Amino acid sequence: MEARYFEDWNVGDEAETGAVEVTREAAIAFAQAYDPQAFHLDDDAARDSIFGRLSASGWQTASLAMRAIVTSGVFPPKGLVGLGVDKLRWVKPVYPGDSLRVLTRVTSKRENGNKPTGIVQFENETRNQHGELVMTHETMVLMPRRPQP
Amino acid sequence: MEARYFEDWNVGDEAETGAVEVTREAAIAFAQAYDPQAFHLDDDAARDSIFGRLSASGWQTASLAMRAIVTSGVFPPKGLVGLGVDKLRWVKPVYPGDSLRVLTRVTSKRENGNKPTGIVQFENETRNQHGELVMTHETMVLMPRRPQP
Repeated sequence: MEARYFEDWNVGDEAETGAVEVTREAAIAFAQAYDPQAFHLDDDAARDSIFGRLSASGWQTASLAMRAIVTSGVFPPKGLVGLGVDKLRWVKPVYPGDSLRVLTRVTSKRENGNKPTGIVQFENETRNQHGELVMTHETMVLMPRRPQP
Repeated sequence: MEARYFEDWNVGDEAETGAVEVTREAAIAFAQAYDPQAFHLDDDAARDSIFGRLSASGWQTASLAMRAIVTSGVFPPKGLVGLGVDKLRWVKPVYPGDSLRVLTRVTSKRENGNKPTGIVQFENETRNQHGELVMTHETMVLMPRRPQP
């Protein structure tokens, strides 16, 4: 897909990312580093938990959504600088073997003075390979303007 | 510190976590896996960016705050199940070599029917080793009740 700059995005525009995978190894490694709770590390503890079986940290789900967005190819190659996140909700657990896609939609955009970036807000739906909604969140980013020729 | 259960937390209660470190290796590994943007991977690209030098992904900062909270020892050993996040703001960049602590404060709590967990909301301030605020966010979790003897 072609990279689209600040000027190219309008309120209501949507993009769907490619799929990102969650392996068991990556889920456990992420939990060890960032969310070392028994239900993300150990099958027996997970079975006794609300999750029923080993699940990925919600922070890994959010980070994988970022990977899906960044590697989608529709954003400026100079990158998106995150300002903040609102209304993040972990709707369903994510399990090893799941594959996630993000549908992102522009909800607002505004100039940022004379800066080479504008501020764009998105609402995002992250779904698994069964089409089930696993996470929703709103993101606010600095997005580069189209370079002048 | 002693683990405190749902019954033990009241609105206004605070806890400060221990420090978590951000190494250059971990910052680059996280960016490769979850936020592969040039300013998080490459020193030259970082120098030309708003960050001035290689910085950690904001999602790593959020994940490290989770690590600090989970390993603080003040929450029930059965673990905290995240429901959502609000008003997350990345206030300042986090750089390799930084060390982060989280100050967390209860803003609301409520029963969850007859369930063995209650719902607790926290506001969190994450600061670096200079005491500078790098991130704020609000978290909503399911917290286990004290086990009955």
